[in-house]
Amino acid sequence: MKIVVTGAAGFLGSKVADLLLSDKSPLLVKELVLADTIKPAIRSDPRVTVLAIDLTSPDAATILIDNNCDVFFHLAAIVSGHAEVDFDLGFRVNFDATRALLEAARRIKPTLKFVFSSTLGVYGGKLPNVVNDFTAATPENTYGATKAMSELMINDYSRKGFVDGRILRLPTVVVRAGAPNKAVTSFASGIIREPLNGLEALCPVDKNLKLWLTSPQVVVWNIIYAATIPAASFGSWRGVNLPGFVTTVDQMIQALKEVAGEKVAALVRFVEDETVNRIVSTLPTNIDNSRALSLGFSVDVNFVEVVKNYIKYDLPKKEI
Amino acid sequence: MKIVVTGAAGFLGSKVADLLLSDKSPLLVKELVLADTIKPAIRSDPRVTVLAIDLTSPDAATILIDNNCDVFFHLAAIVSGHAEVDFDLGFRVNFDATRALLEAARRIKPTLKFVFSSTLGVYGGKLPNVVNDFTAATPENTYGATKAMSELMINDYSRKGFVDGRILRLPTVVVRAGAPNKAVTSFASGIIREPLNGLEALCPVDKNLKLWLTSPQVVVWNIIYAATIPAASFGSWRGVNLPGFVTTVDQMIQALKEVAGEKVAALVRFVEDETVNRIVSTLPTNIDNSRALSLGFSVDVNFVEVVKNYIKYDLPKKEI
Repeated sequence: MKIVVTGAAGFLGSKVADLLLSDKSPLLVKELVLADTIKPAIRSDPRVTVLAIDLTSPDAATILIDNNCDVFFHLAAIVSGHAEVDFDLGFRVNFDATRALLEAARRIKPTLKFVFSSTLGVYGGKLPNVVNDFTAATPENTYGATKAMSELMINDYSRKGFVDGRILRLPTVVVRAGAPNKAVTSFASGIIREPLNGLEALCPVDKNLKLWLTSPQVVVWNIIYAATIPAASFGSWRGVNLPGFVTTVDQMIQALKEVAGEKVAALVRFVEDETVNRIVSTLPTNIDNSRALSLGFSVDVNFVEVVKNYIKYDLPKKEI
Repeated sequence: MKIVVTGAAGFLGSKVADLLLSDKSPLLVKELVLADTIKPAIRSDPRVTVLAIDLTSPDAATILIDNNCDVFFHLAAIVSGHAEVDFDLGFRVNFDATRALLEAARRIKPTLKFVFSSTLGVYGGKLPNVVNDFTAATPENTYGATKAMSELMINDYSRKGFVDGRILRLPTVVVRAGAPNKAVTSFASGIIREPLNGLEALCPVDKNLKLWLTSPQVVVWNIIYAATIPAASFGSWRGVNLPGFVTTVDQMIQALKEVAGEKVAALVRFVEDETVNRIVSTLPTNIDNSRALSLGFSVDVNFVEVVKNYIKYDLPKKEI
């Protein structure tokens, strides 16, 4: 099958590509288009085409979606911190570009499996003790608002038979490799990644703050797995909270200490940031995973394993 | 103050105008612009301007919103049955036109109180026994989807200080005067209105179907009252389910019999319509009114009073 990935130069997009091209891929890939605003790294695999494309340009959607396209992983987005600073860009990329892709699918390939990465950021305000897939989306940030709007749109396009959408609300992904990004949750990777690379990390939130996490390995598997689920299994709502688990910042640092020692863990320094605190503290930290698990999605074991997996898969080898 | 009403040629819009121009108005009106696709009826009141305008035209928003505008009642919409048939028109009017109005407010008058009529149609799927303002919007119709998307957008524009939004989810309004409209709930007015006008009425749903209703008098008061509530009272979510009450189709016909006699009530004939049934049966029929009531919104007494009020205020006099 032919598969397209947007945001493919990013951390998750590139891992989705890696898994799709591996012999562990749940999908049989004949052709893989990797698209991002900057051209994704060229791969030796003959199935791969890389493409630099601005999703807000008028012809982007019809360049990406053709009649042979079977699965579309739409991972590109203006993340939380960035959309909070640039409202208009957030709307254009997170909402308008998604709409253009849906319209292209409707015209060109209505059976297209359209896998959309959404976010915990759709939640906000006073949340119930346990959030589930049918808790209202009342976002308190533009990232969450534009994602929640896109969710509703994808669901209605799917209901009408214009596309075959699957909407995944991702937990905070930790440990992300590479440089910090503009997500307000970027610190959650930083406080593990930077110390393991011998660098100091600033933590902008209290050590007792709870976070709802997934590892990159599990979430990348889940993103691809979403395309294999029969549409009917979702019922009338195509959205699902991907499984995650709760941990406190302090527990994360304890796990780091357990895996890498006290000196490494001591590289985390607490310097409060009000904006980050305000947005992060509106995110839910207790989500009922049962619907996702019954759909066959996977979940992590514990945070110590997450740290070990970062070291195993993502820590630059020269730094060990 | 200067007030604009869209959808002002419609049943509710015209009643909102009547109340605003009366001495019972909760708002002091200096200037009132009544806009609709067809020009609303001219009124003798010198404060009133009537305007035929297509909200999907590029300059509509800046024609309607100027620096003097204080309150904007955005009631115009492509209703449920119509949007289900014309998906694109539903998106253009219910979502894109709303977005253009918000953008105009942001540029020209960010303090504008923007009162938006939303709908029970944002709900769908398996609902909890009691729905409240924080039950997820998982619409199963394009009308509900475009309204729910607009809600999220209005809430985020309000959070950013680009407009002062108030989002009202209206119960089914019964008894609407005049001709049937393209809402799937249109029959609920028809089965009372047509018999009282000596005409047969077709009822497309089962007599045991439950409906969540409001009278025109109460909902029109609530729409205007919404502009008087301090923004802070809404907390971080500007949306509220306006108060309603539950009744079955059978109870409605019994009330009609009680008020107008057996011969009138016998004019209702049951002829099932599958599309109407499918959409109407996804609407919630038990909504927790407590947040709306604590914000000061009003609620009806019972359905017999609703029938009596239709006769008092809306039944064409020659027909009595």
